[in-house]
Amino acid sequence: MNKIKVGVLGATGAVGQRFVQMLEGHPWFEITALFASERSAGKRYVDACRWNLRGDMPAAVRTLIVQECEPGADCQVVFSALPSETAGEIEEDFAAAGYAVCSNARNHRYDADVPLLIPEVNPEHLALVDLQKRNRGWSGYITTNPNCSTTHLVSALHPLHVRFGVKKVFVVTMQAISGAGYPGVSSMDILDNVVPYISGEEEKMEQKEPQKLLGVFDGSGIQYADFVVSAHCNRVPTRNGHLEAISIEFEAQPTQEQILQAWREYHPLAQQLKLPSAPQPAILYDERQDRPQPRLDRMAGSVPGMATVIGRLRPDPLLHFKFVVLGHNTIRGAAGGSLLNAELLVAQGYLGQDHALLAKSATFA
Amino acid sequence: MNKIKVGVLGATGAVGQRFVQMLEGHPWFEITALFASERSAGKRYVDACRWNLRGDMPAAVRTLIVQECEPGADCQVVFSALPSETAGEIEEDFAAAGYAVCSNARNHRYDADVPLLIPEVNPEHLALVDLQKRNRGWSGYITTNPNCSTTHLVSALHPLHVRFGVKKVFVVTMQAISGAGYPGVSSMDILDNVVPYISGEEEKMEQKEPQKLLGVFDGSGIQYADFVVSAHCNRVPTRNGHLEAISIEFEAQPTQEQILQAWREYHPLAQQLKLPSAPQPAILYDERQDRPQPRLDRMAGSVPGMATVIGRLRPDPLLHFKFVVLGHNTIRGAAGGSLLNAELLVAQGYLGQDHALLAKSATFA
Amino acid sequence: MNKIKVGVLGATGAVGQRFVQMLEGHPWFEITALFASERSAGKRYVDACRWNLRGDMPAAVRTLIVQECEPGADCQVVFSALPSETAGEIEEDFAAAGYAVCSNARNHRYDADVPLLIPEVNPEHLALVDLQKRNRGWSGYITTNPNCSTTHLVSALHPLHVRFGVKKVFVVTMQAISGAGYPGVSSMDILDNVVPYISGEEEKMEQKEPQKLLGVFDGSGIQYADFVVSAHCNRVPTRNGHLEAISIEFEAQPTQEQILQAWREYHPLAQQLKLPSAPQPAILYDERQDRPQPRLDRMAGSVPGMATVIGRLRPDPLLHFKFVVLGHNTIRGAAGGSLLNAELLVAQGYLGQDHALLAKSATFA
Amino acid sequence: MNKIKVGVLGATGAVGQRFVQMLEGHPWFEITALFASERSAGKRYVDACRWNLRGDMPAAVRTLIVQECEPGADCQVVFSALPSETAGEIEEDFAAAGYAVCSNARNHRYDADVPLLIPEVNPEHLALVDLQKRNRGWSGYITTNPNCSTTHLVSALHPLHVRFGVKKVFVVTMQAISGAGYPGVSSMDILDNVVPYISGEEEKMEQKEPQKLLGVFDGSGIQYADFVVSAHCNRVPTRNGHLEAISIEFEAQPTQEQILQAWREYHPLAQQLKLPSAPQPAILYDERQDRPQPRLDRMAGSVPGMATVIGRLRPDPLLHFKFVVLGHNTIRGAAGGSLLNAELLVAQGYLGQDHALLAKSATFA
Repeated sequence: MNKIKVGVLGATGAVGQRFVQMLEGHPWFEITALFASERSAGKRYVDACRWNLRGDMPAAVRTLIVQECEPGADCQVVFSALPSETAGEIEEDFAAAGYAVCSNARNHRYDADVPLLIPEVNPEHLALVDLQKRNRGWSGYITTNPNCSTTHLVSALHPLHVRFGVKKVFVVTMQAISGAGYPGVSSMDILDNVVPYISGEEEKMEQKEPQKLLGVFDGSGIQYADFVVSAHCNRVPTRNGHLEAISIEFEAQPTQEQILQAWREYHPLAQQLKLPSAPQPAILYDERQDRPQPRLDRMAGSVPGMATVIGRLRPDPLLHFKFVVLGHNTIRGAAGGSLLNAELLVAQGYLGQDHALLAKSATFA
Repeated sequence: MNKIKVGVLGATGAVGQRFVQMLEGHPWFEITALFASERSAGKRYVDACRWNLRGDMPAAVRTLIVQECEPGADCQVVFSALPSETAGEIEEDFAAAGYAVCSNARNHRYDADVPLLIPEVNPEHLALVDLQKRNRGWSGYITTNPNCSTTHLVSALHPLHVRFGVKKVFVVTMQAISGAGYPGVSSMDILDNVVPYISGEEEKMEQKEPQKLLGVFDGSGIQYADFVVSAHCNRVPTRNGHLEAISIEFEAQPTQEQILQAWREYHPLAQQLKLPSAPQPAILYDERQDRPQPRLDRMAGSVPGMATVIGRLRPDPLLHFKFVVLGHNTIRGAAGGSLLNAELLVAQGYLGQDHALLAKSATFA
Repeated sequence: MNKIKVGVLGATGAVGQRFVQMLEGHPWFEITALFASERSAGKRYVDACRWNLRGDMPAAVRTLIVQECEPGADCQVVFSALPSETAGEIEEDFAAAGYAVCSNARNHRYDADVPLLIPEVNPEHLALVDLQKRNRGWSGYITTNPNCSTTHLVSALHPLHVRFGVKKVFVVTMQAISGAGYPGVSSMDILDNVVPYISGEEEKMEQKEPQKLLGVFDGSGIQYADFVVSAHCNRVPTRNGHLEAISIEFEAQPTQEQILQAWREYHPLAQQLKLPSAPQPAILYDERQDRPQPRLDRMAGSVPGMATVIGRLRPDPLLHFKFVVLGHNTIRGAAGGSLLNAELLVAQGYLGQDHALLAKSATFA
Repeated sequence: MNKIKVGVLGATGAVGQRFVQMLEGHPWFEITALFASERSAGKRYVDACRWNLRGDMPAAVRTLIVQECEPGADCQVVFSALPSETAGEIEEDFAAAGYAVCSNARNHRYDADVPLLIPEVNPEHLALVDLQKRNRGWSGYITTNPNCSTTHLVSALHPLHVRFGVKKVFVVTMQAISGAGYPGVSSMDILDNVVPYISGEEEKMEQKEPQKLLGVFDGSGIQYADFVVSAHCNRVPTRNGHLEAISIEFEAQPTQEQILQAWREYHPLAQQLKLPSAPQPAILYDERQDRPQPRLDRMAGSVPGMATVIGRLRPDPLLHFKFVVLGHNTIRGAAGGSLLNAELLVAQGYLGQDHALLAKSATFA
């Protein structure tokens, strides 16, 4: 059976390039369309895109002609790496035209009928897709993944929330420069420096995303989870990998060993389904007293850049426990998050039962 | 009248060099003795010391002969930049021999009869000196300044504690490499990285120092202040300046404006006395949404490196308020802290009434 | 007598800010006009400019209203920090209207009747000003300073050229990020990296600037000096200070000691005139085997950022000698270069004899 | 047939860890012995070694017991990552005891009967091994690889030297921090800085290594090649990858296209033999005007870290041509260099004809 044809919206930017890189050799997907701004449209991808990742641009896409961001291309899924200035309307156009849009943009994350997804955390929220199609009269639909900092925070919290109930979360982020895209952060602003402010980031982490992600689908929408988050967001001079210092209080206070056990035993649906981009295991706990560290650990695990790495669990004098979380921001926190969402769509039959069966047989072969 | 003769213990190291730099041209003090390890003793300072600060080694000390760390030198005050492996006993020897020891080492900070001082915060703790001399039968005495991260945390809290009572503090530090001395942090460990662990640092910030600094002298000792601190300490790739993300809860919840007012109106004894190294004002509040930043603000204020710079005051969803604090770690957080302690000793008559009068007249001339 | 009124073209950019910073408290000049793009015009400087240097924006200019870049303002000298896209025509307009334009832009550097100046090196080239005014029928005129990398190369070569005749020069630069302005170099491009290419830089250093600077004014124009330069230009992750590895062959081979002597005895006109921004001495030689270094030495000397610092003189196996040169790129290599040119104009009577006399008496008072 | 048993001398250090990493899963070699200082001896490798590379310590070596650096262990080859303070004598002891020592240390590189090898460049120098065994009465022998900066310089020169004859070389290095080992360069010395000095490095590049590597074996020893090198060596704040700016003059001046052709057609013995660690091709030329760059290109090619990457070939005003070379310093420039030497030993029968045959059949299978 042929691979599923996919396109990338905003293919020449930093996140767009990550999509292209991660889709190279993907067992289920093949790129058949690359979309970018008018300025790039009509050029070969190799000419339109200043490739900024290690390794060469994949051979298969070098001569693809970049298209403007309009429906019509021959593909079933489009991954969106569009900036929020343009993502909103373009994604709607594609969804209306029948495409499955897997978006990394923030525009539709908070819409009541759009799933904000981490496949390990809330796969049941996919049910919103049917609601969305009905509401909006679309033949396609939009799914989204959360902000890079939220992703790893919630990935670490999920197994604990299920067992002990998260009540209060204190989080301070130390975020890598790649989180701001390219050219993004000026070297003049960050060399020998820390910037204690990232526009809009604290709002996303405090109010908009964790409570939706850990919320419950009640048949007609998401009942947001009820816990409080305080976030301080900082930019530091690391290339990749957001580090987060977290303190937490639970409904039911566990022991330190019970927390470790919850992380150790964590084997959610995405891992059970053996989605190709799902790391096995989803969470790595590092015992060493000075880990995780961005440079050494951001690519740890079975699928580089997709795992959440945790360390330094210890009692907290104010709340119950504190620990450190690290995750790759442009892989799991951006392109990889959308890609895993698309894999979940396939495995759950949202791209047709044929694909779902194939995925199942291929994976378990 | 002549200047007060002072020496520096551990003069060849990173903090020792800062002492030498800050004492150049000091209005009250002049360096007459430099002490270092056996290996350096007998050499001229210029030959014994690999000068690692911008600008040249001060001319006046280049040819001073470095001595071993033993009492006997012609000076009244010794500043201690010794590592904790050796500081304990050597400082005791000097105090016993009649010197006023102003130490940056941690060894005696937590002794019940040794003042842990920030001149703006707890000058009345100097009363411990008499107790200490009596207890130990010494003709001299030891004073200490707190850890670099504690210093700026407590400097920011003090005006708030006085008015509203600090109850709970959450702090995450992003500390500069110079805090680990020289050679200190390997470049292999910190380039493109953050290390979420600094040995012993969280213990100092949580239990040992803030509560003593904000404690009350009751005639026989310090009654520790009663509040709880949760600290996460991180090393980041900045040269100088520790940045701290802080959330706080008070006994009596103030308004945001009342907090700003408390900082604005802060004019404690050290500033009233116009101690030469006391910044005017002690606390700077920066209104800009992305400040303070280490590179741009660590030298802000009237005495470079001595002020505490605060920004981003805003409500906190969990506690009452949150904000960002920045302070220079090797100036106010180390050598400058000890130096200001020594200036307080002079002004308060602990080095003789003649000096105190002189200080007074000179300052207010 | 009043100070000379000056304006800054392109005042909100990186080099423009350096002009503003260096002009604060200047003994001869006071800023009366700030010019920037249409977007900034009409705003107060404090509102139009994102101040990016350490320390606060000087109080005297905070409320100056930014003007569009057109003649008419009340000042005698304009410093140009304009980008080369717009500098050419605007500078001509100001010169035609009677202003003395001291430009850091490259547009007019290579015009046969425009002096390319380093006051220590070729003050006699100022004679081109009369030629220029005659040629062009202007009441004002343009002077320029060289590119940041050329400035320090030629500053080091000049005393040697005079005595031994420079014949061949090999130079490899390691240039700081601030050389590209703000936002300039993306942090994504330079963290943990070196970029072995800077657009147009090698051409300037090889053919366009050193030979003009060391050329001879023959009454009707500059006879370019006759030597060959090979340049490799690189961007490295340092904030300020261009480091240059240089090998050199002379017409008459000197001894190592003769070279050191030429640098030691160097006391050109700018230093004899005691121009306020001229460092005393102009060249610093550092004997230490691992110096100069950008972080430690870029601000060395009597006027921070204005001296040329040299080290590691040793025989070269291919040419005669090799050594290392360091200079501050945004101070001496940009704003400070133009400022020193303006000071030379004053002292040499190009801004009127009254000012020249005043400068003389003030300086030698 | 079983794999060849190998050991690593100095296994806990930075280069030692690279050996262990590169030997994991090697088709011909398996680690059976790890040697380190007395302090580590007797401990499991996982306990003795602070693993400092990305990814986990290979499982197969975690529980190997570290031995003191003395002959006796069950292996046929030992790789030496020893520091030069101890490498000299220990390597001799192992060679005398019958081991094939493949050393990265500098101690024996310049001995007349010890081959200094780059398998692509001078495999015929292996003939020195027989001479060495005879001279010294050893049953084993020592081979060495050059310094990291020399390796990539000579790798780029070799195909040109063969065709056009290298006459003069000018080289300026910008070397990564990992070249100094761990902890190596203090972060205080290199953040926001360049250090224009590396002890002993310029001597190695100018006189000791390139001429031996490109020399001719005349039956009784190496006739050094006759060309002159001028080197300036600098440390820059990059993690891995030495960048070199090179100008060159030939005996017979080629065209630019002839140089590109020489690199393009380069297919030396190591590549013909398909040694497992030999990159295919050995030299990569990058057409882009701003490449190679350390971060983007140090792992380029078929065996990450083993290729030499070249760019920016253009005419030089002083010599004939100039270009930029990049190579990984701790892979090809250290551990990978020794490893490739060992692979050459196998393929050429120096570890026994059985192994040679096997290598041949396995590789060409």
